[in-house]
Amino acid sequence: MVASPPSKTLHSTVEVDLGSRTYPIYIGEGILREGDLLRKHVTSKRALVITNDRVGPLYLDETVAVLREGGVQVETVVLPDGEEYKSMEVLMKIMEAALTHRMDRTCTFVALGGGVIGDMVGFAAAIYQRGVKFVQVPTTLMAMVDSAVGGKTAVNHPLGKNMIGAFYQPQAVIADMATLRTLPDRELASGIAEVVKYGLIRDAAFFEWQEARVGALRARDAETLSEAVRRSCENKAAVVAADEREAGLRATLNLGHTFGHAIETGLGYGALLHGEAVAIGTHMAAVMSAKLGWIDAALAARAVALLRAAALPVELPRGGGMTPAKFEAAMALDKKVSEGELRLVLLRGPLGGCVFTGEYDAAAMRETIAEFCARQ
Amino acid sequence: MVASPPSKTLHSTVEVDLGSRTYPIYIGEGILREGDLLRKHVTSKRALVITNDRVGPLYLDETVAVLREGGVQVETVVLPDGEEYKSMEVLMKIMEAALTHRMDRTCTFVALGGGVIGDMVGFAAAIYQRGVKFVQVPTTLMAMVDSAVGGKTAVNHPLGKNMIGAFYQPQAVIADMATLRTLPDRELASGIAEVVKYGLIRDAAFFEWQEARVGALRARDAETLSEAVRRSCENKAAVVAADEREAGLRATLNLGHTFGHAIETGLGYGALLHGEAVAIGTHMAAVMSAKLGWIDAALAARAVALLRAAALPVELPRGGGMTPAKFEAAMALDKKVSEGELRLVLLRGPLGGCVFTGEYDAAAMRETIAEFCARQ
Repeated sequence: MVASPPSKTLHSTVEVDLGSRTYPIYIGEGILREGDLLRKHVTSKRALVITNDRVGPLYLDETVAVLREGGVQVETVVLPDGEEYKSMEVLMKIMEAALTHRMDRTCTFVALGGGVIGDMVGFAAAIYQRGVKFVQVPTTLMAMVDSAVGGKTAVNHPLGKNMIGAFYQPQAVIADMATLRTLPDRELASGIAEVVKYGLIRDAAFFEWQEARVGALRARDAETLSEAVRRSCENKAAVVAADEREAGLRATLNLGHTFGHAIETGLGYGALLHGEAVAIGTHMAAVMSAKLGWIDAALAARAVALLRAAALPVELPRGGGMTPAKFEAAMALDKKVSEGELRLVLLRGPLGGCVFTGEYDAAAMRETIAEFCARQ
Repeated sequence: MVASPPSKTLHSTVEVDLGSRTYPIYIGEGILREGDLLRKHVTSKRALVITNDRVGPLYLDETVAVLREGGVQVETVVLPDGEEYKSMEVLMKIMEAALTHRMDRTCTFVALGGGVIGDMVGFAAAIYQRGVKFVQVPTTLMAMVDSAVGGKTAVNHPLGKNMIGAFYQPQAVIADMATLRTLPDRELASGIAEVVKYGLIRDAAFFEWQEARVGALRARDAETLSEAVRRSCENKAAVVAADEREAGLRATLNLGHTFGHAIETGLGYGALLHGEAVAIGTHMAAVMSAKLGWIDAALAARAVALLRAAALPVELPRGGGMTPAKFEAAMALDKKVSEGELRLVLLRGPLGGCVFTGEYDAAAMRETIAEFCARQ
């Protein structure tokens, strides 16, 4: 690697503190094309950049170019875009490309894309030759605020979402806000669902900031987007540093996700974006929490209002055919089930409070599911 | 789990010292059927026992029975037997069974079989729901002395052996010497190839013990087999504790394996047993070491004599069609290649000495390969 001057582009850095595996998340405008941060963390002679057919045409050339400028020998893989391709079959295409190009275990994988690419490439890096280095270059808001941070990697199985995977941390996360300019509105909104989550489960001030700035977020105001990503990453990094392998606390990041995953599995991968399913699931969790008397109905309404203001769906899609039986079947397979008990993340107390528990009146869950199914 | 009395059966224990992931290897006669050790380490409510269609008919019923006696709810998977089934496609059958039975991440996988089952089940445990516990119950000498110990798990890819996997440690290894009684002679010999390896790379006294006891080993003398397993596990545990992720020292356990893997890949998985390919590879490594002047020709001859005495092949099979080009293609993909340099484990100095290095005269390697190919 040739010497390069320090980064010329302004960016902020959030550290994920995991001892010897500590790594930085860089957040800034133009930091991908500028190249110094990527070259700093791809220290191998060879790299495999994996992207999809939507992001590739936009950012693959510049990513490859900045690596080659640093003297890295680069190969590329372009996968089909979409949650329905987050499968072992598609992951094996990454393995085959790496083997065909004779990548050895000193190489680095680079994940260029959204959550599907990040999850799949991270998992591929975890298992290729029993583990190679990788760098996350998230190009969606969802990936920047959630999936690229924290080392959860996985592929889906027809019987359940993210059922096959590993905890595996990247060398760095490079979140270039410039890539959000090309993001479709629906994808932008999907990412906001996870931003709202951080406010609801642990950061009341952040929630209130979002209520005030949701218009600016939707309008892609650069400063507002950067601040949303930075504050989200700070929340996620704090949780992950305290509980990397989800012994307890980390599970709270799954607010709305147990219902949401059931919706994704029930409707078939790709019918909804992940954040859209999470928004509906968050609505369900808020309603159930209010039924249990754990939060005021006014707080549930406020959560739903913010999700709606972010242009997110909060009800099951018409004609999707979700049934209580489909919810139950998918939720029984949730990774948070422990020895038969389904534990849920629910809101409790004032804004910013939540619990992760299997101790709740199951009738409240059944009623919530029935009501949402009835309104389809 | 119901309370059980302490183990009634005599066994020896070798510890693999890996801090919080330290685990025991139990070696004894009848300890599987006796059940206490297995029940001690399967502490979950549910277990998935995975075996193959050769070992299953012999030991699956008793394994399931002793777990059920402990109150564990047990499901089973029986896979086809053979190295050619150590693939991602077959591994996905384990995932599907676990999901179909709604196993959650508190469950335990039990690997009942030889090296293929152990490697595949260990890898399945590493990635099912991002990691569940597993116990190794090796039923071949190869698995007892090598593959079940140390946490290397993997499946093969058509382009290379063990290319997809993880470092993932079991809760315990239960090596019941009684299971070796049903092992075919060829499989027994295959295991001895790895026993010979420990002598050659680090334990001269053990090598000399083997020279004296190889007849008793082949005759399956119970005490001799137990001692061979115990001393092999002690060697392996010491190496793994010092270098779990193969930064250096652990690579020495691959004596003969780079040539051996190339032979396995070149002939097609299943043509030779792993230990048979390793025996030929060990012969090649010894010849190359002698060509380099790193060991006396007499030591190379002694190594080959012991392998032959163990009824192992030491030359490429006639009609197999191995060529120098096939060796080079497969060896270029070896996991020990680092930034283009092929590092090999070679013998150096008196009996028990070896090196792991990329600094050798490549002409010695080419000559060795050419000579072996010419003798086919």
